[in-house]
Amino acid sequence: MKTGFCGLGNMGEAMAATLVAAGFDVTVWNRSPEPVQALAEKGATSADTVQQAAENADILIAMLPDDTVTRQVLVESGALDALPEGAVFINMATVSIAFSRELDEFLAGKGLHYLAAPVLGRPDVAAAGALNILAAGRQDALDTAMPVLEAMGSKVWHFGDEPQQANAVKLAVNAMIAGAIGMMGESVALAQGYGIDRGQFIELISTTLFASPVYQGYGRAIAEERYEPAGFKLSLGLKDVRLALEAGERVNVPQPISAILRDALIDALAHHQGDQDWASLARVATRRAGQE
Amino acid sequence: MKTGFCGLGNMGEAMAATLVAAGFDVTVWNRSPEPVQALAEKGATSADTVQQAAENADILIAMLPDDTVTRQVLVESGALDALPEGAVFINMATVSIAFSRELDEFLAGKGLHYLAAPVLGRPDVAAAGALNILAAGRQDALDTAMPVLEAMGSKVWHFGDEPQQANAVKLAVNAMIAGAIGMMGESVALAQGYGIDRGQFIELISTTLFASPVYQGYGRAIAEERYEPAGFKLSLGLKDVRLALEAGERVNVPQPISAILRDALIDALAHHQGDQDWASLARVATRRAGQE
Amino acid sequence: MKTGFCGLGNMGEAMAATLVAAGFDVTVWNRSPEPVQALAEKGATSADTVQQAAENADILIAMLPDDTVTRQVLVESGALDALPEGAVFINMATVSIAFSRELDEFLAGKGLHYLAAPVLGRPDVAAAGALNILAAGRQDALDTAMPVLEAMGSKVWHFGDEPQQANAVKLAVNAMIAGAIGMMGESVALAQGYGIDRGQFIELISTTLFASPVYQGYGRAIAEERYEPAGFKLSLGLKDVRLALEAGERVNVPQPISAILRDALIDALAHHQGDQDWASLARVATRRAGQE
Amino acid sequence: MKTGFCGLGNMGEAMAATLVAAGFDVTVWNRSPEPVQALAEKGATSADTVQQAAENADILIAMLPDDTVTRQVLVESGALDALPEGAVFINMATVSIAFSRELDEFLAGKGLHYLAAPVLGRPDVAAAGALNILAAGRQDALDTAMPVLEAMGSKVWHFGDEPQQANAVKLAVNAMIAGAIGMMGESVALAQGYGIDRGQFIELISTTLFASPVYQGYGRAIAEERYEPAGFKLSLGLKDVRLALEAGERVNVPQPISAILRDALIDALAHHQGDQDWASLARVATRRAGQE
Repeated sequence: MKTGFCGLGNMGEAMAATLVAAGFDVTVWNRSPEPVQALAEKGATSADTVQQAAENADILIAMLPDDTVTRQVLVESGALDALPEGAVFINMATVSIAFSRELDEFLAGKGLHYLAAPVLGRPDVAAAGALNILAAGRQDALDTAMPVLEAMGSKVWHFGDEPQQANAVKLAVNAMIAGAIGMMGESVALAQGYGIDRGQFIELISTTLFASPVYQGYGRAIAEERYEPAGFKLSLGLKDVRLALEAGERVNVPQPISAILRDALIDALAHHQGDQDWASLARVATRRAGQE
Repeated sequence: MKTGFCGLGNMGEAMAATLVAAGFDVTVWNRSPEPVQALAEKGATSADTVQQAAENADILIAMLPDDTVTRQVLVESGALDALPEGAVFINMATVSIAFSRELDEFLAGKGLHYLAAPVLGRPDVAAAGALNILAAGRQDALDTAMPVLEAMGSKVWHFGDEPQQANAVKLAVNAMIAGAIGMMGESVALAQGYGIDRGQFIELISTTLFASPVYQGYGRAIAEERYEPAGFKLSLGLKDVRLALEAGERVNVPQPISAILRDALIDALAHHQGDQDWASLARVATRRAGQE
Repeated sequence: MKTGFCGLGNMGEAMAATLVAAGFDVTVWNRSPEPVQALAEKGATSADTVQQAAENADILIAMLPDDTVTRQVLVESGALDALPEGAVFINMATVSIAFSRELDEFLAGKGLHYLAAPVLGRPDVAAAGALNILAAGRQDALDTAMPVLEAMGSKVWHFGDEPQQANAVKLAVNAMIAGAIGMMGESVALAQGYGIDRGQFIELISTTLFASPVYQGYGRAIAEERYEPAGFKLSLGLKDVRLALEAGERVNVPQPISAILRDALIDALAHHQGDQDWASLARVATRRAGQE
Repeated sequence: MKTGFCGLGNMGEAMAATLVAAGFDVTVWNRSPEPVQALAEKGATSADTVQQAAENADILIAMLPDDTVTRQVLVESGALDALPEGAVFINMATVSIAFSRELDEFLAGKGLHYLAAPVLGRPDVAAAGALNILAAGRQDALDTAMPVLEAMGSKVWHFGDEPQQANAVKLAVNAMIAGAIGMMGESVALAQGYGIDRGQFIELISTTLFASPVYQGYGRAIAEERYEPAGFKLSLGLKDVRLALEAGERVNVPQPISAILRDALIDALAHHQGDQDWASLARVATRRAGQE
């Protein structure tokens, strides 16, 4: 099964590497050449153009930054037109519902199959092939894709036949992460208002009722006030919360907490936190309380 | 060391039982007699009046429902006046900052010691002596109290010399629980808006990024839409979130998410959910989305 | 008809003066003596104690700062006990629903009549006898009080038989004022984000769609960034919004906008704006946008 | 001076009629022919295509529903390319900042002038030529356009040299209207919670502190619970509040009240209020309080 892979950022490179290691025939493309070369040394075929990655592929995987880049690189470039009939396109990036639907219609019109399959997990998890993969799309397309998905993830979730369903799940999860960070920020500000050490408070919650990756990972950053380098930039977090709100608006779902989170993320941007890790959303609460 | 214990609700009875089992000399009082008798059978001394539980006690523990009841039972009744000089009063209930400060001044004026020591954990955890105990107060009082606290908890946290500090931590934690429920509600509504099964969504989050007691416990209730019988009534949850907001206002801490949670809890009360478990806060999101 | 008047702040002094000018037999009391003397020179009788203002009064009017002061001065002092049977007590201050109900029960138990009658209007309006008086209480009490109310106001509104109804209306109106200031703040921040002059924006709204006293008065302060001296202190504004939220919670009314306003007022307090006019609530929006 | 006018809805038809009545040489176009005919009978020239309205025009005015329709009708159709060099295009519709900037660049690249000039006022105000016109764009373009603008409006405001500035002002004003409706809703719910008649409450505010067109007009609808026929549909109100939020996000301005208003408007849509007048936003508050 020939597989193309476009978009070799931190996540994409690690994911593509697991495919190569698992013995798949992978052709990789990236805008900048360094990761292409690195993967070629591991056994991937390098593509000079995205079309080369697409043509002859049974499966084309994309892990590009956002709607705009994905549209430019794959749609406007004509790359998707280069896919052979019956091929499956798997978009693993976090994109908007609107764009996912647009892709779905575009591909269906060409006799191609579309899976949305965004992931949970950071680059180290991707490198271990241990992502949680949130997939949606028709069952036959999923069946075709399953071998490559299983190589990249420890678990493949199937949320329905419409690709946008997986995007909705991913956006909902990201909104929940923002919610966890936002609530940690409020609670740290409250605790500090009573002279309580933020580290001790975070230790309490992250070792008891909230002992889970999100509270432990972001909690540690908040406890140590260490927001650089960014694992996930706050400006991207704002984008995702906005996409979650747009997703809600399409189906008439009020999301007042997410709305307040978006507001706080904008406050953070206005205070030059856009390039910090989005754990620094917690700073908005302490700053508003006059604690900074 | 003679210990008095007032307030034998679900939590108090379990906590007092661990003290008796650990060999402490415990005199217990409760408004209704059944749990007093049950504990007497296990080896506790029963008190007919709260004064009897207080007089001669080295340590008096209270686990009463709220500010109002605690004030009536212990302050207005004169029970605290019955404590021998130098005794330590440990209030383990969730009360307001204002009332905790009031108690602190009242007791200090009588030469008595005061510890605030609210807990994390449900009755089954209390029965196992495995609570997390959030203590604050002067170190010498804590030293005196430590044997009984350690009998009831797996870990005793000391948040500072002022009793109100422990109350602030407890209120912050409860606000965070409300936040977790509220965000689950919004996300379930969003997911359902796209035809995704709520059970599958809750399974995803509670086995991956949010795999922790709060998300698993409340998540299960939300997944199954099972809000009765209440482990913790929504009306009490509203009280705690309001107390967290009051605590923040005292020290100039804005808490916009908690403010929105309070608002949603009121919406729930207006729709007859006050006696349901506060996991049913999640219903506000789905109802507002027209999904009920 | 003998009338007592307690509380001669800026509002109270102007209101009492209109009664004296209208020929009523008014006995006045105030904690500090200066305004008592000033009114005595205009023809009022001065009282050395609040009891003197109450005894023999057909009507006792109070315009004291808040719940706490009103309780101390009138209830705990025994002043209300000095009122002759059948007298009417008119509380014109902005107080909580809870305290208004407490007063109602207290007075009913003594065979006294109670009217809540908070007002709309600043001291200059009070001096002109042109207040809008928001009254509630039994019709017979209102009938008795009407001559003095009409001397102080251009219009007397009767909102129902229960005194708390007038308090609810007053709190709702004050929340609306906060809402108008808050929205002006957001809109000024938005306009300034596009390089638009705040004065021109305020001129637009306050001369067209929003041409009314609230938008013109507070709008001018915002346009000129002139928040001192305070006509109404921001810290008092926070108190009133909190009372409005408490009033809503008593009857299960969610008020998300008011909740956000409370939050912004706390942010303002944390930034040392408590003694500024509450028009300076608008600064929260521009500060959060990084425009200050 | 030859003037083209595209978009003869309720507003556009009234505006074009004032131009005809003022003696301007106006060529009109509309998708449906009826209003074209009506204006032709009053002296306008009718255009069969939008290109006919544009070619030879010194000034082209558009009053189309939204970004999408405006882009289709004027940009994608090639109509703007038909404008003679040096012509001024005046877009009087409420559009997004992003689209206004796109138009600005598009027209500048063709040697054409662009004014954004959205308006305040309903169709009856437009028919009287008494609109408030919120203009932005270069001074020379405004000078050219002034005669036609003055024929349509009682006042022309100039908010700056960049067209988007006028769009920002219009969106800020519309957000303020939503804020006024939202606060009336909350306050009516609070008042009703205390048994107060909503009509009396609205009368109070709209004849005193808030005596202005917005509170009187929308207040009357709320008082009478009369939301049909819609003067301005709630679904369009949601669109405008969303555009205001997007405008704020572009320049890092948090708008928490507007965020909550957007949320409430979505709640309204989920309850089938999309075609009601946006005064019915007030129903969200009373419904959430269990009063409906």
